[in-house]
Amino acid sequence: MRQAGRSLPEYRESRAGVAMLDACLDPDLAAEITLQPVRRHGVDAAVFFSDIVVPLKLVGVDVEIVPGTGPVMGSPVRTLDDVERLRDLGPLDAARLAPVAEGVARTVAALGGTPLVGFAGAPFTLAAYLVEGGPSRDHLAARRLMHADPAAWSALMAWAAEMSGAFLEAQVLAGASAGQLFDSWAGALSLADYTAHCAPASAQVLTRVRALGVRTVHFGVATGELLVAMRDAGADVMGVDYRVPLDEASRRLGGGTPLQGNVDPALLAAPWDVLEAHVRDVVRRGRSAPGHVVNLGHGVPPETDPTVLTRLVELVHAP
Amino acid sequence: MRQAGRSLPEYRESRAGVAMLDACLDPDLAAEITLQPVRRHGVDAAVFFSDIVVPLKLVGVDVEIVPGTGPVMGSPVRTLDDVERLRDLGPLDAARLAPVAEGVARTVAALGGTPLVGFAGAPFTLAAYLVEGGPSRDHLAARRLMHADPAAWSALMAWAAEMSGAFLEAQVLAGASAGQLFDSWAGALSLADYTAHCAPASAQVLTRVRALGVRTVHFGVATGELLVAMRDAGADVMGVDYRVPLDEASRRLGGGTPLQGNVDPALLAAPWDVLEAHVRDVVRRGRSAPGHVVNLGHGVPPETDPTVLTRLVELVHAP
Repeated sequence: MRQAGRSLPEYRESRAGVAMLDACLDPDLAAEITLQPVRRHGVDAAVFFSDIVVPLKLVGVDVEIVPGTGPVMGSPVRTLDDVERLRDLGPLDAARLAPVAEGVARTVAALGGTPLVGFAGAPFTLAAYLVEGGPSRDHLAARRLMHADPAAWSALMAWAAEMSGAFLEAQVLAGASAGQLFDSWAGALSLADYTAHCAPASAQVLTRVRALGVRTVHFGVATGELLVAMRDAGADVMGVDYRVPLDEASRRLGGGTPLQGNVDPALLAAPWDVLEAHVRDVVRRGRSAPGHVVNLGHGVPPETDPTVLTRLVELVHAP
Repeated sequence: MRQAGRSLPEYRESRAGVAMLDACLDPDLAAEITLQPVRRHGVDAAVFFSDIVVPLKLVGVDVEIVPGTGPVMGSPVRTLDDVERLRDLGPLDAARLAPVAEGVARTVAALGGTPLVGFAGAPFTLAAYLVEGGPSRDHLAARRLMHADPAAWSALMAWAAEMSGAFLEAQVLAGASAGQLFDSWAGALSLADYTAHCAPASAQVLTRVRALGVRTVHFGVATGELLVAMRDAGADVMGVDYRVPLDEASRRLGGGTPLQGNVDPALLAAPWDVLEAHVRDVVRRGRSAPGHVVNLGHGVPPETDPTVLTRLVELVHAP
């Protein structure tokens, strides 16, 4: 479960006084935080604790994660010159990726037989933060650049694809068993814009991961309209948020694509019988796909009662 | 065009030193601001200048609009007792609605033959602000209440429907020629949740407006999955944001529903030939519906060059 840690007291203790990006780049701490939900809930896989802006930080982009806000850039990227300055930062090479590779290696060693899923933000979502300069509701600055300056946009997407691909590749080479690409904000795009201006860069990342012999998972929020295009970019498994039921998602995908998701995080605070009925419905509908990784259809809300998550995992394991 | 004013220097001048809700409740100022984009751009209809939280303000809810943030509530609504306290504020009657009715009447008088579209937020969107206490990305608090405390939720929706309906009714009675219901955040909902927990309250509002003999328009952002349910709630015209092309929207609606929208606001900053091609494409696809009110598929970005909007209107009038 994405962001499962932040509902745990042991996570808050581990993070006390440590900035988000410092935690991501401390191999021991990243391994410990990745393991916490596995120990607690007995889930079947771990998702590597990191953040989508970690590759940006590693090449020297001026970015920090402001608590309560999200990633904030020192200066937004708005022109081809700005993209040139990103390129001038140099490649995301093995030396720079060492803390990530080390964190993954320690996590994999500690996990024993439990697989680790690697994690990266997709090029559009990285670009949305870079162009906007921070979080945004409608990602207008990024969508504007896409149409107003296609040369700058495509240079930015090529750079972002390289960052995202190198980040995910390093995790797989260090032992991750699958790679998950998060295009958190792709739901802000029309299908035409996604297909023409974003999917090729995501395909580059997914192809690079698949070339290492591992499976890919592709996820975005509010991407019911984009499921087929996101799958066709090179996903073995499609993540589905809580908006579209899995039988409908599988129908859109032609019935041949395994799915991940789509328990509604809002239901985690409902009475148990309401949540149980919802989870059973999700599992039942997921049977229409040739495989379903039960998961939330979005991140775990920080105020979630962890015992509810444990009970949910037990329900799915022994329905 | 929704929020067309905020790109205009004359709007910024009118609003200088005046808080948003004070501007909405000043009949002369509301009329003047409503007229500004009509004078400038020669559009075929005006949308009454107001805000979705105006009815809340009029009954005495502790709400203010914080510039750069949005509506912020003094205390969030989380329980049935909280909803009782809203009810205790009393009805949104003609006395309380006087500044709105007066603003509409002055606007209609000044508009001459140009029709005025009335404006209100839908019950779910009002509830999302009330429960969250302010703007939110995923509207989790509202969606949680819906499932965790159905009694509180349905009481809240009934109250919000009464506010929204009374607000829109007053505008029609004062001379508005149509009523537009904005369910800005409905796109956060699954179709099942929208249909079961939100559509009945919206239907109550739309039915009330239709009973006055005027047409209704229903709009939300990222609501491609909900178009049919939103139409079936009682919309004569369905607003479509920029995400779903109009021929596809019309197909989903069975081909019999007039549409409004769906020019992408992000294109307003693109070179003219790119914007022109986009608008022509929108108009062409809109011909598949039995009527199309050309409009943006979301609000006008404040930094938009007003001369681009004028040129866009000219293009649509004389293609």
